[in-house]
Amino acid sequence: MTGMKRTTEKNLMVFSGRAHPELAQEVASLLGTDLVPQSAYEFANSEIYVRYEESVRGCDAFVIQSHTAPINEWIMEHLIMVDALKRASAKRITVVMPFYGYARQDKKHRGREPISARLMADLFKTAGADRLITVDLHADQIQGFFDGPVDHLMALPILADYVREKYGDQRLAVVSPDAGRIKVAERWSARLGGAPLAFIHKTRNIDRPNETMANRVVGHVEGRICVLVDDMIDTGGTIVKAAEALMADGAAGVVIAATHAILSDPAVDRLKNSPASEVIVTNTLPIPAEREFDKLTTLSIGPLVSRAIREVFEDGSVTSMFDGHA
Amino acid sequence: MTGMKRTTEKNLMVFSGRAHPELAQEVASLLGTDLVPQSAYEFANSEIYVRYEESVRGCDAFVIQSHTAPINEWIMEHLIMVDALKRASAKRITVVMPFYGYARQDKKHRGREPISARLMADLFKTAGADRLITVDLHADQIQGFFDGPVDHLMALPILADYVREKYGDQRLAVVSPDAGRIKVAERWSARLGGAPLAFIHKTRNIDRPNETMANRVVGHVEGRICVLVDDMIDTGGTIVKAAEALMADGAAGVVIAATHAILSDPAVDRLKNSPASEVIVTNTLPIPAEREFDKLTTLSIGPLVSRAIREVFEDGSVTSMFDGHA
Amino acid sequence: MTGMKRTTEKNLMVFSGRAHPELAQEVASLLGTDLVPQSAYEFANSEIYVRYEESVRGCDAFVIQSHTAPINEWIMEHLIMVDALKRASAKRITVVMPFYGYARQDKKHRGREPISARLMADLFKTAGADRLITVDLHADQIQGFFDGPVDHLMALPILADYVREKYGDQRLAVVSPDAGRIKVAERWSARLGGAPLAFIHKTRNIDRPNETMANRVVGHVEGRICVLVDDMIDTGGTIVKAAEALMADGAAGVVIAATHAILSDPAVDRLKNSPASEVIVTNTLPIPAEREFDKLTTLSIGPLVSRAIREVFEDGSVTSMFDGHA
Amino acid sequence: MTGMKRTTEKNLMVFSGRAHPELAQEVASLLGTDLVPQSAYEFANSEIYVRYEESVRGCDAFVIQSHTAPINEWIMEHLIMVDALKRASAKRITVVMPFYGYARQDKKHRGREPISARLMADLFKTAGADRLITVDLHADQIQGFFDGPVDHLMALPILADYVREKYGDQRLAVVSPDAGRIKVAERWSARLGGAPLAFIHKTRNIDRPNETMANRVVGHVEGRICVLVDDMIDTGGTIVKAAEALMADGAAGVVIAATHAILSDPAVDRLKNSPASEVIVTNTLPIPAEREFDKLTTLSIGPLVSRAIREVFEDGSVTSMFDGHA
Amino acid sequence: MTGMKRTTEKNLMVFSGRAHPELAQEVASLLGTDLVPQSAYEFANSEIYVRYEESVRGCDAFVIQSHTAPINEWIMEHLIMVDALKRASAKRITVVMPFYGYARQDKKHRGREPISARLMADLFKTAGADRLITVDLHADQIQGFFDGPVDHLMALPILADYVREKYGDQRLAVVSPDAGRIKVAERWSARLGGAPLAFIHKTRNIDRPNETMANRVVGHVEGRICVLVDDMIDTGGTIVKAAEALMADGAAGVVIAATHAILSDPAVDRLKNSPASEVIVTNTLPIPAEREFDKLTTLSIGPLVSRAIREVFEDGSVTSMFDGHA
Amino acid sequence: MTGMKRTTEKNLMVFSGRAHPELAQEVASLLGTDLVPQSAYEFANSEIYVRYEESVRGCDAFVIQSHTAPINEWIMEHLIMVDALKRASAKRITVVMPFYGYARQDKKHRGREPISARLMADLFKTAGADRLITVDLHADQIQGFFDGPVDHLMALPILADYVREKYGDQRLAVVSPDAGRIKVAERWSARLGGAPLAFIHKTRNIDRPNETMANRVVGHVEGRICVLVDDMIDTGGTIVKAAEALMADGAAGVVIAATHAILSDPAVDRLKNSPASEVIVTNTLPIPAEREFDKLTTLSIGPLVSRAIREVFEDGSVTSMFDGHA
Repeated sequence: MTGMKRTTEKNLMVFSGRAHPELAQEVASLLGTDLVPQSAYEFANSEIYVRYEESVRGCDAFVIQSHTAPINEWIMEHLIMVDALKRASAKRITVVMPFYGYARQDKKHRGREPISARLMADLFKTAGADRLITVDLHADQIQGFFDGPVDHLMALPILADYVREKYGDQRLAVVSPDAGRIKVAERWSARLGGAPLAFIHKTRNIDRPNETMANRVVGHVEGRICVLVDDMIDTGGTIVKAAEALMADGAAGVVIAATHAILSDPAVDRLKNSPASEVIVTNTLPIPAEREFDKLTTLSIGPLVSRAIREVFEDGSVTSMFDGHA
Repeated sequence: MTGMKRTTEKNLMVFSGRAHPELAQEVASLLGTDLVPQSAYEFANSEIYVRYEESVRGCDAFVIQSHTAPINEWIMEHLIMVDALKRASAKRITVVMPFYGYARQDKKHRGREPISARLMADLFKTAGADRLITVDLHADQIQGFFDGPVDHLMALPILADYVREKYGDQRLAVVSPDAGRIKVAERWSARLGGAPLAFIHKTRNIDRPNETMANRVVGHVEGRICVLVDDMIDTGGTIVKAAEALMADGAAGVVIAATHAILSDPAVDRLKNSPASEVIVTNTLPIPAEREFDKLTTLSIGPLVSRAIREVFEDGSVTSMFDGHA
Repeated sequence: MTGMKRTTEKNLMVFSGRAHPELAQEVASLLGTDLVPQSAYEFANSEIYVRYEESVRGCDAFVIQSHTAPINEWIMEHLIMVDALKRASAKRITVVMPFYGYARQDKKHRGREPISARLMADLFKTAGADRLITVDLHADQIQGFFDGPVDHLMALPILADYVREKYGDQRLAVVSPDAGRIKVAERWSARLGGAPLAFIHKTRNIDRPNETMANRVVGHVEGRICVLVDDMIDTGGTIVKAAEALMADGAAGVVIAATHAILSDPAVDRLKNSPASEVIVTNTLPIPAEREFDKLTTLSIGPLVSRAIREVFEDGSVTSMFDGHA
Repeated sequence: MTGMKRTTEKNLMVFSGRAHPELAQEVASLLGTDLVPQSAYEFANSEIYVRYEESVRGCDAFVIQSHTAPINEWIMEHLIMVDALKRASAKRITVVMPFYGYARQDKKHRGREPISARLMADLFKTAGADRLITVDLHADQIQGFFDGPVDHLMALPILADYVREKYGDQRLAVVSPDAGRIKVAERWSARLGGAPLAFIHKTRNIDRPNETMANRVVGHVEGRICVLVDDMIDTGGTIVKAAEALMADGAAGVVIAATHAILSDPAVDRLKNSPASEVIVTNTLPIPAEREFDKLTTLSIGPLVSRAIREVFEDGSVTSMFDGHA
Repeated sequence: MTGMKRTTEKNLMVFSGRAHPELAQEVASLLGTDLVPQSAYEFANSEIYVRYEESVRGCDAFVIQSHTAPINEWIMEHLIMVDALKRASAKRITVVMPFYGYARQDKKHRGREPISARLMADLFKTAGADRLITVDLHADQIQGFFDGPVDHLMALPILADYVREKYGDQRLAVVSPDAGRIKVAERWSARLGGAPLAFIHKTRNIDRPNETMANRVVGHVEGRICVLVDDMIDTGGTIVKAAEALMADGAAGVVIAATHAILSDPAVDRLKNSPASEVIVTNTLPIPAEREFDKLTTLSIGPLVSRAIREVFEDGSVTSMFDGHA
Repeated sequence: MTGMKRTTEKNLMVFSGRAHPELAQEVASLLGTDLVPQSAYEFANSEIYVRYEESVRGCDAFVIQSHTAPINEWIMEHLIMVDALKRASAKRITVVMPFYGYARQDKKHRGREPISARLMADLFKTAGADRLITVDLHADQIQGFFDGPVDHLMALPILADYVREKYGDQRLAVVSPDAGRIKVAERWSARLGGAPLAFIHKTRNIDRPNETMANRVVGHVEGRICVLVDDMIDTGGTIVKAAEALMADGAAGVVIAATHAILSDPAVDRLKNSPASEVIVTNTLPIPAEREFDKLTTLSIGPLVSRAIREVFEDGSVTSMFDGHA
């Protein structure tokens, strides 16, 4: 037969945008490789320029960017990086977004709104993304916005194991800050050996719906250390009010745990002054030094992301990392 | 200038699959037109055949099909009807699915599952659908699965106005059968003039998570007529247990209201034998005579759907039908 | 150079829908592997659910489903299986449809009909199919409906070799049941060492076109065992009338051979009562026990399909399986 | 409401490639308009250039080109014209190809062939075609190759009415030159008031398949004027041999009728020297003066094409032009 | 015939992002309408939110945004606005970008770069843009990056007429700041009644290529008022050096004219201190008060953009606005 | 785990159209393989037929065709070859077009023109091309017309090294035949060790723009051998006039170098009679014997193309072939 044969090799390469290079560097190191060197900067009019300094031809590319503020700049850089990889003949491009930007705009809350979370999925597809890796989506349905495989990782094991180790010998309760996230709390409860559940019901007082909002604790929290769990902390308003309600209801203490530490102003002040004794988050988003504070504990999402990348690269199983879920 | 000018006319035509012709007929009549005559039948091996008996060239087509059991057959007929319209030069094709089939599979609950609700959106797009009209999606995010405009209608005004008229002079409570649907109940409460809210918390007893499931009523229902609201009733298990829990908690009575009456076995038996005094649904899905029972009240979704079609056809506003929502 | 290299492996995995698991099992066994374990069932409202019980990441997937009645259900299951594979990161997805559903609706016979065979091709593409394997399409042009590679297999060698072995020492004729399929009969004739050809001309009596239909035998069949060949037997009307015409014309006997045994009612009764002494088919479609009858001989298509899969997986040649055809 | 309203007008514009301007001019005149003026020529290296000399913004464009030799040049011009229309903001683009180039390569006759007829459909779609109008496709399935509406016209009424008028008072037979085209002959027979059918069976003598090809006449033609019908005449080999076979079988005369007069060498010589007394074709393809000959009668397809364009433009019915067919 | 007819109306609606509302307002006013009211703001984490406050169903939407710094934010807002329009059933969406962001990255200057200008075209297409209107692209080829119609406007008439009126009675020369833009200068010359041409040749001294760059004036400028023309002024380095070279060569004065006033630091300082007596630009980009300076003359692009929108809306001719060009 | 594993091999196969088989043969030989045998011919009506005579399943296909006159025929053959490869299951298809047809129509020079260069990119994508390899595009922006990787090779090293070797000991100047191509001349100058630059300014006499065109030499060429460089020579008018202007300006001699030798009539006559002493081109396009002439030196592009193919096949770097450019 005519032709020339070669055994096929695949080559994993890890790329990082400029939003959160520490996380990307950690992921690369855990994989046993380096970040691919690149030039990236802005022109005077704020247009972004990117170029890779090594050949990327035929590689299995994983492109990491944290969608932190200024979020539109970092998303555009992410898109431009994917475009450059596509045109430079990368074989497969996996977009790694530890935090999925615009995830909260996942539907039309009212008529004539965009569905920005779907738009983001389409923009990355258009730029050349073959697949996505992301962590703790605001709504699981967002997986269905991307036309291709999505590996949806969960930070729960990382956060919950930390809590179990530190607080496991005390009387705990798992608390959801609103009624819509009870299922997450149930998983926490299971992981913490069956801790009781509670949640905060933000209500216009159930019997007098026209009065002002109140935060009612549903479930028994008296005398317990409450682990207040959520997917993200943005300005911190909801979760701090929840912590206050728990203390008012007789909780012995409050520990807050969330995957995504957006920490927009005035989150840091609110959390500092809240009754919570510890705020446990991951580094899916960078936390600049000026936003760190004593109570804040940051666990790295790096090991989880690097393991997922390895499974994807080696055709292993991401689902098995989570006992069949994800 | 070379050429030949004409004033442009648009022509609304309404088409119906065979799953629920009564609803389609009602919609067409309310619009002041007839269903377009067609041939539709199965070949011996169950393949479906469709042909329109009039020219549809240039029309603004609205194709109505209820995704009822046997659901795969009716969805396929719906797709084939769209293909025939596309090839026969319809100008615009709006798929009207009062109940969106496979809406519950809107995410991967576990690894290696399909996201069938997204698949349906893509299949209709491929067949030639330009836009969708649907009623009360299982999750609002499904709007984002379709690559095009989706008019998402709400049956709430129809159902709630019926309840207000019939039960408005009694002491009411609005009850959600599970924690995830509180927001729907809130809208009911507002529509019913501020009736108090409650919901059923399906739990492994909050303090003893390893024991069997219990249905706990959250909120005060004693002495009240409880309006138990949901998007659909399939086998009726959840909602009937909720009704029982409400009565056990001292409710004065239970009325069930839901948009989509799937009523799979053994829903009818369960509902008949439940403590609910009335079950109020719409006809987004056909209810065959043998599934009707004394307590069942069916309100027609026809006026809502026909008004939406008229707004779409005449470039009016669907959002304004719902005070800015949808 | 930055990065981490690995030799690439490919992994063949065979999946089966629920329409005809025996055939899929046979194919897998011939390949020396097992079917991938899965959950597949219907919900109460007849929606289909599928989940794979093993990781499929990176696999070369072959998804087998027979498009038998209830055909829309099995096609939808086929589509959903493909969607689940795509989202679970299968590397390549080959849809194996031994019988291509809706192949007869391959054109608009009249205005305002669908072209369902094209629609099917597009639906599978949309769901995620990269390529198709199918057997004996109703029209060869259907290959062109799919936007990608189609391996079009022929059952002729299997069927014809059986006939040659069993009847080869008798005086044979090859007969086509209608004028449009003479070319298939020519291939049979060549395979049977040059047996004479004949065909049935269904006509309004050539000289009196307004009278009722007659089946005229063209060619000399007197005293010969006639091998009556077609691509499929649905209700059996055409082929049984052809057999009767052959006997009336002095044939020594009739043997029927067809690839696809749809056998819709009343095919079994017609064939039982026909003058044909044997009906030879393959198992591209399942033949339930109650449709089997004495004269019916079923040859397995399994070896052909499994060999084609092996050639596709190992970058061999499917064309060479048929001497340059296909 | 904000905005500025206008009544919408549509404007029909007819464009012509350089392959067969006479036909396009005739079509435009019948529509009561002119061809849009344009520049079109080749550069020195044979690249084609096209530019329209009037604004085409918002028009309903019909772009006529005959796919005659040099066929690749004219197809490319056709594609470039469509591209220019798309970029100049034509509202809708209908490609009118009276003869569909590459229609004979509508399947893989053997492995590793292209399916050029599908490729052509995709190329025109890519260039910007919204819809096709074509005449007498080589296989009806080609309609399904285009992803959009196809208006498939039939020249039968034009040709058959001419024959009926001229030969209707004689004893006629309708003859197909091969077994695969009997259905076309049946429609002719119906149109000619029930003339008897016959066809030519090209065979390796049915009883001795290894011998040289023979043309056997099936049906009674003795003493009749045979109307030999086909979709196209390329080199004329098949049809002239058929004519000879008919005369040898005792026919009183032969008249040939075909839609597409490709007339590649040596068709003209063969036809001139054949026993056919008249060869009736349409002008879907241009017939240069040097290919005309005494026996040749050319009927214009212009009225049919112009009526189809009018129906498309005015949202009338093309199907009704053919009594429900097409 | 079944159905319900209406005369079709089209409705022009103008939308504006927040980058440069003054220009959009001017365009709308010139058209005789208002900007459609909308909500648009950023969330705490800098995600953008947009909602229209009126129905946009069926409208012919023109969405204006200036791609000024912070450019990624404004481009993302532009994309989100298009998504919201698409999902709210706008009939046609025209993206109006007076300055096309990322136009300078229109090719890979070196390997492994993106082609960001193509990426932008694809992102807008994906979001839902049907067509583009833009002014003075950095390279004309960018028109070909968008898969659809592009109306490419030229600011030349606006700028040149101003110059002619003010300086027309003096001895002028038209000067291009680099060799690649001579053709633009030629059009200026024609518009100014045949003013002589010159250009600046940035060179490593033609005979000693390794020495430092010099700006050589080609053409006779002595004693003339030089009109120095370019498409954009970013940091102003090139054009100011050109002005200095002209003065050194004996020019009587320098006037600078450019379409896009990016004016990134330190452009304003450079221009103030340059020998140019006047800097004439348009407002395709907003010029904040702190960047205005005495010599700066800003002409509005609004009349040109509004006329182009009117021609597009009314199916007129944009090409005719420029004597056959564009 | 279920399944069957194999190590993956890749197989390079080289295919050639009929426009310029010598070049393709040379490329294949340099790669150490043969051209894949195929049948390719025209039917009587000039339709092209192609079939591969070996299995191409799973191969890494490189399909070489020179876009020479009759260019539409060869482009169509190229497209058809790609279609056949796609349908025969080639794994990856790289289109190799040493000269990119229609590259000069890369923008709308005036309204209502096509952008044929973009159209070509889209046609090849539609046919199945995954990537392109091409040499010296007329405008670099054309890279952005193709939706996928483009390897853009430069003939400069081949041509310039020949010139250096032959003329390097003389006093050289590098001359661009028009102002728009100075950058190419700069690269030549660098490659030739810093030879001085000049260019021809085609002008309506800078001070009298309404008079006839003149070719003015900019830069000092007196007494030097001028290397006149361009991307292509079509009819040769521009470049021969440039040569004459150089001689008139006192040049010691002229050598012409260009990548693409289109050589349409009357190029050969013009070049023969021109003052140029040598015309150096590559064989990206075939040069038939009758167009060869004494002064013509043809250098093979084969080694460059074969090395690029090898880098692409083996995941090496094409960029590194050009020191970071391309």
